[in-house]
Amino acid sequence: MRMIDIIEKKRDGHSLTKTEIEFFIQGYTNNTIPDYQVSALLMAIFFQDMNDEERANLTIAMVNSGEQIDLSAIEGIKVDKHSTGGVGDTTTLVLGPLVAACGVPVAKMSGRGLGHTGGTIDKLEAIEGFHVELTPQQFEKQVNELKLAVIGQSGNLTPADKKLYALRDVTGTVNSIPLIASSIMSKKIAAGAGAIVLDVKTGEGAFMKTTEDARELAKAMVRIGNNVGRKTMAIISDMSQPLGNAIGNALEVVEAIETLKGKGPKDLTELCLTLGSQMVVVGEKAETLEEAREMLLKVIEDGSALDIFKKFIKGQGGNDAIVDDVSLLPQAKYTYSVPAKQDGYITFMEADEIGTAAMLLGAGRATKESEIDLAVGIVLQKKVGDFVKKGESLATVYANKEEVQEVLDKLTAFIEIEETKKEVPTLIYEIITA
Amino acid sequence: MRMIDIIEKKRDGHSLTKTEIEFFIQGYTNNTIPDYQVSALLMAIFFQDMNDEERANLTIAMVNSGEQIDLSAIEGIKVDKHSTGGVGDTTTLVLGPLVAACGVPVAKMSGRGLGHTGGTIDKLEAIEGFHVELTPQQFEKQVNELKLAVIGQSGNLTPADKKLYALRDVTGTVNSIPLIASSIMSKKIAAGAGAIVLDVKTGEGAFMKTTEDARELAKAMVRIGNNVGRKTMAIISDMSQPLGNAIGNALEVVEAIETLKGKGPKDLTELCLTLGSQMVVVGEKAETLEEAREMLLKVIEDGSALDIFKKFIKGQGGNDAIVDDVSLLPQAKYTYSVPAKQDGYITFMEADEIGTAAMLLGAGRATKESEIDLAVGIVLQKKVGDFVKKGESLATVYANKEEVQEVLDKLTAFIEIEETKKEVPTLIYEIITA
Repeated sequence: MRMIDIIEKKRDGHSLTKTEIEFFIQGYTNNTIPDYQVSALLMAIFFQDMNDEERANLTIAMVNSGEQIDLSAIEGIKVDKHSTGGVGDTTTLVLGPLVAACGVPVAKMSGRGLGHTGGTIDKLEAIEGFHVELTPQQFEKQVNELKLAVIGQSGNLTPADKKLYALRDVTGTVNSIPLIASSIMSKKIAAGAGAIVLDVKTGEGAFMKTTEDARELAKAMVRIGNNVGRKTMAIISDMSQPLGNAIGNALEVVEAIETLKGKGPKDLTELCLTLGSQMVVVGEKAETLEEAREMLLKVIEDGSALDIFKKFIKGQGGNDAIVDDVSLLPQAKYTYSVPAKQDGYITFMEADEIGTAAMLLGAGRATKESEIDLAVGIVLQKKVGDFVKKGESLATVYANKEEVQEVLDKLTAFIEIEETKKEVPTLIYEIITA
Repeated sequence: MRMIDIIEKKRDGHSLTKTEIEFFIQGYTNNTIPDYQVSALLMAIFFQDMNDEERANLTIAMVNSGEQIDLSAIEGIKVDKHSTGGVGDTTTLVLGPLVAACGVPVAKMSGRGLGHTGGTIDKLEAIEGFHVELTPQQFEKQVNELKLAVIGQSGNLTPADKKLYALRDVTGTVNSIPLIASSIMSKKIAAGAGAIVLDVKTGEGAFMKTTEDARELAKAMVRIGNNVGRKTMAIISDMSQPLGNAIGNALEVVEAIETLKGKGPKDLTELCLTLGSQMVVVGEKAETLEEAREMLLKVIEDGSALDIFKKFIKGQGGNDAIVDDVSLLPQAKYTYSVPAKQDGYITFMEADEIGTAAMLLGAGRATKESEIDLAVGIVLQKKVGDFVKKGESLATVYANKEEVQEVLDKLTAFIEIEETKKEVPTLIYEIITA
């Protein structure tokens, strides 16, 4: 088999066989196929696409390119959730306890990553003593007992995807549905997911700028998942404004606790109930999304979700007293208010810019080497559609420095106020179950 | 400027500016842009094409990537001819003396190359003493005096094209009209051509398998030439069967002499008259193709073309007596006849396979290291459309070895004889003058 023939076959619009895809992925992983041939193939895929079978085969070939996490010692269907990323996305912190309380095992491998705020692990480390250094045995035991544990990324998972991603980034081949979908799905599957729920964001703050693109990606991933034996569902949700009110690590922990108590922001709560319903269904603890939603509302109301959150914190060495007294979480030295410059309705809050404002405070990493300040961030008092009076606070900035003018200016500039109320963006555009 | 932006621009169907094309070609030539980005761009060009302006800019950027031959000391418009290559193509040997005799200067830089037979230089070296190691001064003097000289390839011409060609070969991006056209044209222009005539072959034995593809390539090259100030014309000619009767180095020299005497094969003669007419017109020695053709017929008839061939041989150290006594050329030890197996009409002669048969005898190079046997080859007694009786000779094989069964079998297999006469392929499909 020769790589040149594979490139030409795809270039001419034909489908690649399982063997051809494996040849290319294995060869690239072990450096027998050079970058320049792979980038040519990637560009051909960009133009000629891949069918469902090719996408599934590509995903599995990438899974097989490295180690795979073995979660077989954990009972039940391990359900994982993936979000394509946005601003102020606190869902993982809420969803874990929520679906665990419904009996769905969540054995989460999580990362730190770059972005407006830290990753899930950074957020959890805002809790004093919390750590993710569990042995595989501790991890399995905790999931079997509590249905919830979070562990740091380890092992050489999907090395083919890592190489491909780096190459795509410099060759104009990032924006290809089959390549994005197989990349995301291979990582989830290699991390041991038995079923998957996907939150594909759309809008200004998201990777997929249009609902059409987001739908195509979501459907592609759901098909891959179901074609490789992982029950998969997805939603398409709005990221034109930040999700919830809090953007920042400790601030999002507070918001997660509020949401688990049934007192969270409306949009975050609704998103968690929607995603959580899908997780409960693919985890086979409910037959229908409606039934699942009832279960989720119940575990919020009876406190069992919050209880699991406490046990989960304690299980991983954290101080669970923070759940009842959030002032035990890291506190910023200074707070600043962002006053409205006029009376009117909030018509637009640019998620991306508000996220960048949080990063400027130190809430996220611009580079791998950046230090995160867990206490700082932004809490929005108003969202799109709300009425505000001149001088009323739009947002509170939590900072550990006094030079925050740039941040305040950014927030003033990117929270738009107009006299006439505009349509509030739909939170959930679509629910994709197959 | 960043290469990634250039890739994405082309990928999305936009035109690249002159500056962007120069950036990419210069960067690739001096190794600041890596292969994997270039191959991605090439594949994007494969799908999105380039407009006339981009093609001209790409050609000139490749010309400027290395040295350029300065032929300014030679009077007149230096006309070069290029053929996309075929089997038994003796045209260069004939055309040089022919148009030189009409006053068009032919300052030819030629190569050896791989293929069924050697290149023009190999063929000429079948003449005892002939050499191409002329100093620039000797070269210029001879062209000014005789209007004809051939020199070996020298200098670092179009290094960008060399790198790009090697990369295209392994990344499935060879068959792209803008890339093929700019590659050919950049080499001709860097070699000093002031005007260019192109012979684009089509059919089984050719790179362009269909007339449509050949037409597209021919038009692309003619437009590039005229857009960069080199008067350019082209023809599309048949390569479904070998051109002329001889395939082999010394054998083609004999055929060229016959043709210059007005006694050559009909198809080779016609092709030389057609290409030659274009060369005389772009060299501004005639106003019309008809007028040019008259001039060519005259220099054959009055012996002046043959006379120039003699002087040209002598000028480059060769024994010009071969023109009157071709037995002074290298002779093969053995000859074999290929008898017809039945009565009937020749309906098909697969040019490629017959060419390969000549290579098996040693007439051409399979690899750069192969030694060429200048004496060996094939002379066809019959062409498509001819009637043949059972046992009559279809071709004569000239060999220096006794094991030629494979060659004889190939010829028998790929010269098809049928009871019913089929249409003889058109020799010249199209003449493209602008």
